[in-house]
Amino acid sequence: MVIVGSGFGGLWAARRLGGADVAVTIVDRTTHHLFAPLLYQVATGILSEGEIAPPMREILRNQANTRVVLGDVCALDLDARTVTSSVLGRDTVTPYDSLIVAAGTQTSYFGHDDYALHAPGLKTIEDALRVRAAIFGAFEMAEIEPDAVRRRAWMTFAVIGGGPTGVELAGQIAELSRRTLASNFRTIDPADARIVLIDAEHEVLGQFSGRLPAKAAESLERLGVELQRSTRVTGVDETGVDLDGPGPARLEAMTKVWGAGVRASPLGVSVAEQSDAQLNRKGQVHVEENCSVPGRAEVFVVGDLMALNDLPGVAEVAMQSGRHAAGQILARLDGRPDRPLRYHDLGTLASIGRYSAVGEIGPLRFSGFLGWLIWLVVHLTFLTGFKNRVSALAHWSVSFLGRTRSERTFSTDQVRGPGPDWGERP
Amino acid sequence: MVIVGSGFGGLWAARRLGGADVAVTIVDRTTHHLFAPLLYQVATGILSEGEIAPPMREILRNQANTRVVLGDVCALDLDARTVTSSVLGRDTVTPYDSLIVAAGTQTSYFGHDDYALHAPGLKTIEDALRVRAAIFGAFEMAEIEPDAVRRRAWMTFAVIGGGPTGVELAGQIAELSRRTLASNFRTIDPADARIVLIDAEHEVLGQFSGRLPAKAAESLERLGVELQRSTRVTGVDETGVDLDGPGPARLEAMTKVWGAGVRASPLGVSVAEQSDAQLNRKGQVHVEENCSVPGRAEVFVVGDLMALNDLPGVAEVAMQSGRHAAGQILARLDGRPDRPLRYHDLGTLASIGRYSAVGEIGPLRFSGFLGWLIWLVVHLTFLTGFKNRVSALAHWSVSFLGRTRSERTFSTDQVRGPGPDWGERP
Repeated sequence: MVIVGSGFGGLWAARRLGGADVAVTIVDRTTHHLFAPLLYQVATGILSEGEIAPPMREILRNQANTRVVLGDVCALDLDARTVTSSVLGRDTVTPYDSLIVAAGTQTSYFGHDDYALHAPGLKTIEDALRVRAAIFGAFEMAEIEPDAVRRRAWMTFAVIGGGPTGVELAGQIAELSRRTLASNFRTIDPADARIVLIDAEHEVLGQFSGRLPAKAAESLERLGVELQRSTRVTGVDETGVDLDGPGPARLEAMTKVWGAGVRASPLGVSVAEQSDAQLNRKGQVHVEENCSVPGRAEVFVVGDLMALNDLPGVAEVAMQSGRHAAGQILARLDGRPDRPLRYHDLGTLASIGRYSAVGEIGPLRFSGFLGWLIWLVVHLTFLTGFKNRVSALAHWSVSFLGRTRSERTFSTDQVRGPGPDWGERP
Repeated sequence: MVIVGSGFGGLWAARRLGGADVAVTIVDRTTHHLFAPLLYQVATGILSEGEIAPPMREILRNQANTRVVLGDVCALDLDARTVTSSVLGRDTVTPYDSLIVAAGTQTSYFGHDDYALHAPGLKTIEDALRVRAAIFGAFEMAEIEPDAVRRRAWMTFAVIGGGPTGVELAGQIAELSRRTLASNFRTIDPADARIVLIDAEHEVLGQFSGRLPAKAAESLERLGVELQRSTRVTGVDETGVDLDGPGPARLEAMTKVWGAGVRASPLGVSVAEQSDAQLNRKGQVHVEENCSVPGRAEVFVVGDLMALNDLPGVAEVAMQSGRHAAGQILARLDGRPDRPLRYHDLGTLASIGRYSAVGEIGPLRFSGFLGWLIWLVVHLTFLTGFKNRVSALAHWSVSFLGRTRSERTFSTDQVRGPGPDWGERP
């Protein structure tokens, strides 16, 4: 059997199949498992890539029935039951009897793909390193920029999207500018940086209930993040963003990060075209209660690519649905009947800055330091590998108890900005 | 005063000037200090970038008289006494009264710059990440390559140059294939990898004396590295290298790393053209005994760019000459006379693999485990920053006491190889 994707859905499915009498192949365009909820910490210099992206082959080293294949899945043939993947122009065709598609989502610019050049998303390790270069590079450029207006633009950071990614990133850029970079510069004061979080909704972290969104907003503002709520982004270019909302119509900001939207992997379309499945508006595949695809009982869709009972696009859903689909495959081999996915909501958390997070677990709601402690324990638990836990804890001590960050290296080639023809002052 | 370069020469010069009544500006094309002797460990997944490349601004945070400027130095004007640096097409002109040029060296392909595409050097963080992608990517490609001859080419690693860089890298690729990747693959056995170290000289580590080169060769062969000595590389292409020596004339190897040569920074030419200084064959600037440039007493050249008394291109020379030049500038301010650089040779070390290194300190020579312990202590001492030392020691424990490596993440985009037109079997 074949699993497409090495995220939470794919890895949890693979683990469930360890030791079983099935041959498993996992195909992905990278061969690391990505702990995506911590990408913002790689982007802001707290963690290294290796800490959140351990190799799948190493995680599954002792699972002898499982093979990892590098390749971008370019074709699914549900009649022939094959997965075709490609890397460096070379195709690999892997046959399957059962298939789990856990291909996740990618950044969506809602039809404005030209925004991507100026406002990277935060979905991959490459994205995180690009955002890291943009953030640290912006302070470098501000330090040598003689023109005050342009310097202001280098020191303005627009984070677009008020979900967990945007909130966590904005909070960490604020911490960086106020604490980490203190005394690092001679011309600028990094604490003057403006971090503007732009959200189309009327409150950030709208998926949390009760007073939590308001508490998150308070925490962000205390850190120095400016909130522009009920504001839509109508344009993104080299030097700033155009806005439609209660505030100004233009924000000059050299650094823009896009956390506003995701769309389902295009593999969802391929599954729908070859089955009786429907896609929802986000491109997710409507599946049966047991995560299988209507009309293709041997094909399962799990995680962020799956549409089922309005489950949210969070790691917990991916893990549980991945594990469930793998369990269904094993059950059928044993002649046991299909069972529906019973999702156990273990809660949601979002960290805002040092010692501050919001979260809800069942009827309980947390914020502030208590929320942050729970955030810490949960993330340490779910990070893959003992070494990565120790190492992340060490880096968190450096960054949260201490002031500095260990992973500030960036490639100057990845810093983007207007050339000498940046003639007209904004 | 201005320092060009943030390597060992530049950083040690800057530190010497801390607290003095001078305004110091350091200009470099990155703003990190690079601990270049450990680049091979970033390339082979042992260390993260941040551990060997801490930000100069953080190191010099409390040195209030010192400013760090990001930029590629594109012009030195020794008459006008200005340094012009450029980043993102924007020029910064920094005037100086005294200048220390510590611009170091870059990879040299001896007139064959086309080799660079296929055989990266190992001089920068970008190089190390590119080599990391090439090495780990080659095993990934071998795992999915159905053709045995091509698979062999993916599993052959040509390391060109038998100096410390080549020896250390070849040794670590061997360790990686024999230990780290054990049980990671299902089709290939990583231990079948051929690691071929190609050197034009008749022995590797020729700069070491007595029996040390022979001992290094033995250690390498025990690790599984094949040595092709007295062999010149006459061609490098996508799928292998052409050789001229006692062995075969062709080696099919998809992964090639170039550690064979360096040339001085082109800033040496600029200094020579505007002074009475001569360049040697490697492009280094012949300086006076006090490291200043003939005819330009206010300009110093230090480190790998400096030619003085046949001193070798090692970190120790860069540190001592950088510190000396800075001391000369302070002495002149106090009206004290110039003094010649007295180089104290603290010895040379090269690690070969786990628990094995060769070294000499004065009349003493070390090899094997004792050599490795000394290597460990010396490298921990010279790594910049307490945190980086603790963190490197932790990663070394993981890799040397344990089996795994923490930093195996790479970008698939950086894996290079022939496309589907790799038609003719090699």
